[in-house]
Amino acid sequence: MPYFDHNATTPLLPAAREAWLRASDEAWANPSSPYRLSARVFRLLGEARARVSAHLGVTPEEIVFTSGATEANNAAIRWIARVLPADARACVAATEHPSVLAAARDAFGERCVAGPVASDGQFASATVTTTPARFVAVMAANNETGVLGPVAEVDAVCRERGAWYLCDASQWIGRLPARGLALGGFVVGCAHKFGGPKGVGFLRVPPAALAAGFRAQRGGEQEGGRRAGTENFPAIAAMVAALDAAEAQSGSIATRAAWRSAFIDAIARCIPGVVVNSGDAPCLWNTVSLRLPAHDNTRWVVRLDKLGFEVSTGSACASGSAAPSHVLAAMGLTPEAARRTIRISSGWATTERDWQLLAEALANVWGQFEAESGSGKVIQV
Amino acid sequence: MPYFDHNATTPLLPAAREAWLRASDEAWANPSSPYRLSARVFRLLGEARARVSAHLGVTPEEIVFTSGATEANNAAIRWIARVLPADARACVAATEHPSVLAAARDAFGERCVAGPVASDGQFASATVTTTPARFVAVMAANNETGVLGPVAEVDAVCRERGAWYLCDASQWIGRLPARGLALGGFVVGCAHKFGGPKGVGFLRVPPAALAAGFRAQRGGEQEGGRRAGTENFPAIAAMVAALDAAEAQSGSIATRAAWRSAFIDAIARCIPGVVVNSGDAPCLWNTVSLRLPAHDNTRWVVRLDKLGFEVSTGSACASGSAAPSHVLAAMGLTPEAARRTIRISSGWATTERDWQLLAEALANVWGQFEAESGSGKVIQV
Repeated sequence: MPYFDHNATTPLLPAAREAWLRASDEAWANPSSPYRLSARVFRLLGEARARVSAHLGVTPEEIVFTSGATEANNAAIRWIARVLPADARACVAATEHPSVLAAARDAFGERCVAGPVASDGQFASATVTTTPARFVAVMAANNETGVLGPVAEVDAVCRERGAWYLCDASQWIGRLPARGLALGGFVVGCAHKFGGPKGVGFLRVPPAALAAGFRAQRGGEQEGGRRAGTENFPAIAAMVAALDAAEAQSGSIATRAAWRSAFIDAIARCIPGVVVNSGDAPCLWNTVSLRLPAHDNTRWVVRLDKLGFEVSTGSACASGSAAPSHVLAAMGLTPEAARRTIRISSGWATTERDWQLLAEALANVWGQFEAESGSGKVIQV
Repeated sequence: MPYFDHNATTPLLPAAREAWLRASDEAWANPSSPYRLSARVFRLLGEARARVSAHLGVTPEEIVFTSGATEANNAAIRWIARVLPADARACVAATEHPSVLAAARDAFGERCVAGPVASDGQFASATVTTTPARFVAVMAANNETGVLGPVAEVDAVCRERGAWYLCDASQWIGRLPARGLALGGFVVGCAHKFGGPKGVGFLRVPPAALAAGFRAQRGGEQEGGRRAGTENFPAIAAMVAALDAAEAQSGSIATRAAWRSAFIDAIARCIPGVVVNSGDAPCLWNTVSLRLPAHDNTRWVVRLDKLGFEVSTGSACASGSAAPSHVLAAMGLTPEAARRTIRISSGWATTERDWQLLAEALANVWGQFEAESGSGKVIQV
């Protein structure tokens, strides 16, 4: 599998595909309807919720199924902004996903402060200690760099100060164990990042928010009144199958992290001046934000694509925008350096050999560029 | 197919199932990513959008894919309330779906007035002419009764007065031709009501709202910036397959309406005192709101379920609530009369024979009740 853009989306896992089909064939009825066909779906939906909540170590009532991470981030932020006083401030890490940043700016306006990160992408939890913010968003793992956030520390500070904490864990859930993640906060998971279908995710709502009447979409009484709309049971069943499969593989994380390290070492030997933007910061086992010594990242991506390797210039979300990555800018990269960066992200199906082949392909492309510049030719890809 | 609750949800159409699988297998990549695998999905997504827009008779730019009708209704109302002056009023038909009513109350509060309906469920478009409302919601077809709304008239009045019009067409799209529906307004369609998968729908955004910067979810630049979140192409492809199939069957609507009428006649002969709540109001060909002469609707539903027929006590959305139907209350039914009402809703796969069998089953259950009361037995189902 030479696909290295799992942070954008993942292929559907066979177990998830089967779960979706089974549910679509046998459990398609509306779980809220008053006959036996529906009662079964209602029961299965409850079991799916219990499985997700067990992975996180929370109660089933705290899990609200959503259409994905963007809905979940938007809904949590909108609700928090409404229950807080009109002058309450927000502190949002500068490297958050656009669905957090844009929603927080929309909801809090000038009262929203971007929390800085260091040059390796790490957010200092001390920032939260010294801010008067009543709402804090610090993601579990960054989608562009893989850098992990100080979730436990931020969670503890927010609990102590009575601030709401939103932990966007879209890139963490299904990659690292979910258990115990941000137990005081809202936690967001997104199925298509870990082999589940698109269009489904979950929001863990902390008990304090449940007690305060949390609601996402308004309308019917689905999800205990917390998220109106017919429950998408086939997609939920598929997400749970993928999450179960992902969590079952957590024993191989150290090995996979070693493959990533070996890849970085190999690249450093082949391409002089290459830099991993996250430095030595703690990172996901699957993600490398690689700053190349020369050439626009779009040229690298096209050359690698021709060799059969999919990698990304950055976040898929930002592809409509010509601006350089806000994540890399927050880490202090110049626009020019940001445009030399590619994002590489593996999946559970990626092998050690795939990483080695990718390193060879990068060296190959570098060789192509060198040959072309050496020969004086100007070649546009 | 003795399933008569298509207004709650429908089984997945084989063509939709195949489209979902094909897309999940071959077009699962993120359409915003920068390699060829994604460029193909981006192109297919554009084709899907064009097919939906062609059915409605609008431009592709006006179609925003959503996670379903509840999201679409919530997003439209939230956005409209924000762009209107803080004292603007709303007029919402009293029989609207909860995802419209609750969202409008949430957004407009005391400034939201419920527009009355007649005893047959019809909303008088004159109500809109005489209200100062800047936002109007009148659904295309009611989910509980099937009664059609005066969409063209309301659309015309709203255009003339410069009011925003939201036409929730969740029960219309895929049942009656979409073409030309509420061309001045927001229009909402929902895939799982017409054989598509759950978790997907669309919002037609009128050009005036596009020009005013309409946005649903905030975050990435998907859907031209109008609805952030990774596009759920497999579900969208499946929805389009189902919509194509539904629109292709519109030639059989008159026949299907005749089957419904014959069913009503048959029931009237078998069960004395039975009433169709919508009277002679124009109705969907698939829906009958049937007020039975005696016994709680839950008892009817359970007995019919045992005979193999799924019908509903009312909206699936309301099943978490003990209150009688707000739709039937708005039509003047007492809570007692509302609780004698069942909702019957057919689909494209329903045959004339299915309707006849359902009539026989209802007569059978009525006979059971009569025999039990005649014998003086008190039987709880």
